[in-house]
Amino acid sequence: MAVRAAVAGASGYAGGELLRLLLAHPEVEIGALTGNSNAGQRLGALQPHLLPLAGRVLQETTPEVLDGHDVVFLALPHGQSAAVAERLGPDVLVIDMGADFRLTDAAAWEKFYGSPHAGTWPYGLPELPGARAALEGSKRVAVPGCYPTAVSLALYPAYTAGLARPEAVIVAASGTSGAGKAPKPHLLGSEVMGSMSPYGVGGGHRHTPEITQNLSAAAGDPVSVSFTPTLAPMPRGILATCTAAAQEGVTGESLRAAYDKAYADEPFVHLLPEGQWPATASVYGSNAVQVQVAYDAAAGRIIAISAIDNLTKGTAGGAVQSMNIALGLDESTGLTTIGVAP
Amino acid sequence: MAVRAAVAGASGYAGGELLRLLLAHPEVEIGALTGNSNAGQRLGALQPHLLPLAGRVLQETTPEVLDGHDVVFLALPHGQSAAVAERLGPDVLVIDMGADFRLTDAAAWEKFYGSPHAGTWPYGLPELPGARAALEGSKRVAVPGCYPTAVSLALYPAYTAGLARPEAVIVAASGTSGAGKAPKPHLLGSEVMGSMSPYGVGGGHRHTPEITQNLSAAAGDPVSVSFTPTLAPMPRGILATCTAAAQEGVTGESLRAAYDKAYADEPFVHLLPEGQWPATASVYGSNAVQVQVAYDAAAGRIIAISAIDNLTKGTAGGAVQSMNIALGLDESTGLTTIGVAP
Amino acid sequence: MAVRAAVAGASGYAGGELLRLLLAHPEVEIGALTGNSNAGQRLGALQPHLLPLAGRVLQETTPEVLDGHDVVFLALPHGQSAAVAERLGPDVLVIDMGADFRLTDAAAWEKFYGSPHAGTWPYGLPELPGARAALEGSKRVAVPGCYPTAVSLALYPAYTAGLARPEAVIVAASGTSGAGKAPKPHLLGSEVMGSMSPYGVGGGHRHTPEITQNLSAAAGDPVSVSFTPTLAPMPRGILATCTAAAQEGVTGESLRAAYDKAYADEPFVHLLPEGQWPATASVYGSNAVQVQVAYDAAAGRIIAISAIDNLTKGTAGGAVQSMNIALGLDESTGLTTIGVAP
Amino acid sequence: MAVRAAVAGASGYAGGELLRLLLAHPEVEIGALTGNSNAGQRLGALQPHLLPLAGRVLQETTPEVLDGHDVVFLALPHGQSAAVAERLGPDVLVIDMGADFRLTDAAAWEKFYGSPHAGTWPYGLPELPGARAALEGSKRVAVPGCYPTAVSLALYPAYTAGLARPEAVIVAASGTSGAGKAPKPHLLGSEVMGSMSPYGVGGGHRHTPEITQNLSAAAGDPVSVSFTPTLAPMPRGILATCTAAAQEGVTGESLRAAYDKAYADEPFVHLLPEGQWPATASVYGSNAVQVQVAYDAAAGRIIAISAIDNLTKGTAGGAVQSMNIALGLDESTGLTTIGVAP
Repeated sequence: MAVRAAVAGASGYAGGELLRLLLAHPEVEIGALTGNSNAGQRLGALQPHLLPLAGRVLQETTPEVLDGHDVVFLALPHGQSAAVAERLGPDVLVIDMGADFRLTDAAAWEKFYGSPHAGTWPYGLPELPGARAALEGSKRVAVPGCYPTAVSLALYPAYTAGLARPEAVIVAASGTSGAGKAPKPHLLGSEVMGSMSPYGVGGGHRHTPEITQNLSAAAGDPVSVSFTPTLAPMPRGILATCTAAAQEGVTGESLRAAYDKAYADEPFVHLLPEGQWPATASVYGSNAVQVQVAYDAAAGRIIAISAIDNLTKGTAGGAVQSMNIALGLDESTGLTTIGVAP
Repeated sequence: MAVRAAVAGASGYAGGELLRLLLAHPEVEIGALTGNSNAGQRLGALQPHLLPLAGRVLQETTPEVLDGHDVVFLALPHGQSAAVAERLGPDVLVIDMGADFRLTDAAAWEKFYGSPHAGTWPYGLPELPGARAALEGSKRVAVPGCYPTAVSLALYPAYTAGLARPEAVIVAASGTSGAGKAPKPHLLGSEVMGSMSPYGVGGGHRHTPEITQNLSAAAGDPVSVSFTPTLAPMPRGILATCTAAAQEGVTGESLRAAYDKAYADEPFVHLLPEGQWPATASVYGSNAVQVQVAYDAAAGRIIAISAIDNLTKGTAGGAVQSMNIALGLDESTGLTTIGVAP
Repeated sequence: MAVRAAVAGASGYAGGELLRLLLAHPEVEIGALTGNSNAGQRLGALQPHLLPLAGRVLQETTPEVLDGHDVVFLALPHGQSAAVAERLGPDVLVIDMGADFRLTDAAAWEKFYGSPHAGTWPYGLPELPGARAALEGSKRVAVPGCYPTAVSLALYPAYTAGLARPEAVIVAASGTSGAGKAPKPHLLGSEVMGSMSPYGVGGGHRHTPEITQNLSAAAGDPVSVSFTPTLAPMPRGILATCTAAAQEGVTGESLRAAYDKAYADEPFVHLLPEGQWPATASVYGSNAVQVQVAYDAAAGRIIAISAIDNLTKGTAGGAVQSMNIALGLDESTGLTTIGVAP
Repeated sequence: MAVRAAVAGASGYAGGELLRLLLAHPEVEIGALTGNSNAGQRLGALQPHLLPLAGRVLQETTPEVLDGHDVVFLALPHGQSAAVAERLGPDVLVIDMGADFRLTDAAAWEKFYGSPHAGTWPYGLPELPGARAALEGSKRVAVPGCYPTAVSLALYPAYTAGLARPEAVIVAASGTSGAGKAPKPHLLGSEVMGSMSPYGVGGGHRHTPEITQNLSAAAGDPVSVSFTPTLAPMPRGILATCTAAAQEGVTGESLRAAYDKAYADEPFVHLLPEGQWPATASVYGSNAVQVQVAYDAAAGRIIAISAIDNLTKGTAGGAVQSMNIALGLDESTGLTTIGVAP
């Protein structure tokens, strides 16, 4: 019996990627699709790559339209999910692809988002310790941010194994789809092609508290995080270069052992052979995560690098993976580890 | 019972794309993988996006290695397929992704390739009139070139319907993967990013006789073809802009009716709604073809434009589609019409 | 004594490129800079690449602000230049980088632009026959469109030499800066990277009548033009692939002789050696035009291809070149034929 | 009286960029141009963007050919400059764009380059304390590496002002031209477009000791450096994201004051207004450096970010700037701070 899924926010990049994945999911039947300013338009005009849905027309995002589905995915601007979610019954699986329910610390939410904290839902990064158990059977899921996904999977094994000191320095490059589909001058093709530029520098990016939350949980102690995101001239992908000062006695071998152990049974995280480094092209359109780690003895630092597709594992793929767990399906259903390359 | 498939030339772009598709094909089991200069290497180092095959090691391309499979795909440099094919038994389905068996005119082959003509196999562009019947049950298939695929699907309905005069002017832009993986200075990222350039100008490109063959067959008369390929700063995709002088009395309506009729039941060809034009991004990684056609009354010309992914529908997807037909499987098995966008 | 120049529309791409060139022009002193919605802002925030002008503040586009300069460049939306120009005195050199005064045929203007025709000014493509004489000493200049610049320089020698029949088929690829700086969804980096797409198909592009005007003048008879522009994933550059049926008796030699003769003394047009083809990367940021021509005997067509930088030779460089001529300066002053590559 | 300059290695990216700049230098006359495997070829075929030199033919790199010039630029593979330089007289200004004479520490050279240390020449990064004095009148100049240029200009003021602790964590993204023009599979356009990937991770990149040398000199004490370079999908540009733990009492104001003081009179380094961050597009093709700095109080770290063009300020522009100083010309002669954007 098919799982009926509705998607609120189907005209954006997150919604479009989600639909791409749901169309390939053998257990899902796509129900209502909604948009706000785009309600009434054909999906074929808005998402021309989704040929099988070209004739579908977007509806308005209302509780009535979203009602009666088994799963409702919310791909809405931050701050809008809570109001929609509370109108959906407790038996509906609600998967929020926005930021509203990710943070456990209300003060951090209010500082970075400037609005009241809506609460905390089970966190949809199954690879983190304890995350799968919280997701199984849950009716509410907060999908992680794209940067926190890439960074947490790069660094958490070093923290759980006690190998890294509690200060991390992270520089990540993201494709432009991470900035969304609303047209802004600095996101024009003419501006981004041929250009690398930072933004949200100095701790100002909203993903900073989420990264801090995940690494601190892994370390069992507060981790200080310096996080600089940069915009790269490509549509998709995140390359996260993460470093942390090493604890005494760390070696390349102890690091590798920790990462081997953490990821031996993970279906989507691929610890690369020694000497091979992640590339975003290799995970294009896939739910895979490439990870590599090294110890720089001269600098005394651990260097852990991950590559993900920000729209797939970083957003919509993570959402489907969490849905599978919440519904008791095989975690990999409808997802692939094969990138579209070159 | 699974179809066992071998791939000769698994380290190149065509071979890699084929493996990406075969991994998702529910009826196929991947057998021997061969390469020449790369024999002995791990596929994980050569095709890092194919995670499930990362541990496979390339073998040499010999009849012994390729023997014992139900299907053998040849992704070899032109001129090498005949020698391999004749060593494989008549019961093996041999699918040549190179040029060797595409042309019916031996003189054209010799003029453009400078070697003796190896013969002509059933042509793997099922959408052309009569092509499916020739493919059903066949043990030999010649997969079309990427440009001929894009151009033929853009223009053939105008010729079969008698709407176009027998002279076509075609300018096509291709992503760089069409030029292959052998490193050459003009294909360096530094050279191609930010640059459009033509090549094989003046009828010199080897796909010219294949385009001529297809359009002439559709027209029932020789068609004169002016074909200019250009290299575009993107990894994948072909946009083919094809024009032909219109016969007397052609209208936008008669054109549209001809294309509607040609493509009404085609699973992979999508005639776009009026006013919407193809974009290569929409078919990225998919087997879909976007087509649109218009009549320019002032110039008296038909303008037909198609977008394909040169590696998927233009090469490996076309090969899988033909394999499905030859084996009696559903034609769409393992293939998608959904692009990876943005 | 310096020429004082004002720029109306200094925040857009055409205005920015013009300022880049004027800053390097030894005879020009940059005067008033105006914008509309951006009036009051620092140029450093709007055009961060123009470091020497970072502290300049945009004024409103009014006759009072533009008054008192030797030259006024108008980089305004079409339809706005006439009103500004008539408020400037007859002794001021007014150079319109918009479309308003390019067309000689009022009916064509009204059909393509939907507003009353403002008139016709001397046409700023000095390489065309007779153009320099009309520009010398003129106080009004209409700078050509970017596509007409590329196409006219590729094809006009074939027409003036009587080698081409009066029907031309043109497909041109442009970088995204040609579409301007106003943010629109289809111009987002996420949309354009990795994608080729056509627009204005079937004769609908507003540059079509201008191309027709130029080629017809060269031929001495009306030329029918099929023109298809495409958007390419690069910030700058136009590659124009232009073909025309050849007159009887045309040979590769007669073609080459015609082009040699046309361009022997042109400072900015470079007819490439036989066998070498234009690439937009080679003219990046320069006022150079690369041209090559060939005769395709099998198709009976002339293939002429040009590459320009749409913002330089295609807009701002053409404007400066015309200014130099109008003011009696050396035509090449402040301009370069050296591209920024790779 | 013109300065006659020879360029050894004129067919590569560094040599090509140098020629682009020298062509615009009012005091320089371009003399011999040499290449090795490309000797005998027309520059027009190798560097088609350098139209004024299209007819020049490359000679072999021999002392005889290079003799008799005022300046000889060496753009050779590392390890080859010493042998050439010693054959040129002591009165010739020799400017080495390779690595051979950059390092003061012979052991570091041998560890990273695996060959005997050739010596140390005055270091061509005039903005560093004391560098100009060493360059004035010198007959030998070692041009810095591209990454060390970007990183040193981002961080050195924090060290000279005593604001940063002696451990720096640096992640830099470079355009592909930094990897040179020799064709390698991983540098193909098909591979690099759409992809970010790291290399030389864990301190292995050869620019690490040069960065360490510069920062340690600024700090007056050894600085530990963690340096991770990444390859970005663009032809040119380096964005260097540099962080260091702050000393006690550092504030945003004290940082800004230090950078203001360091760069107040520098013609090429532009400290951006607060809130504006560097972008590589803004310095495309220019000798400018954009720098911004901030204090992340939560993480206790200084974040300094710079953008340069790796081929201009990072290589050939730095070489010309140093030549100007060595010869007693105005330091900015022939160089621009204006980028080619968009």
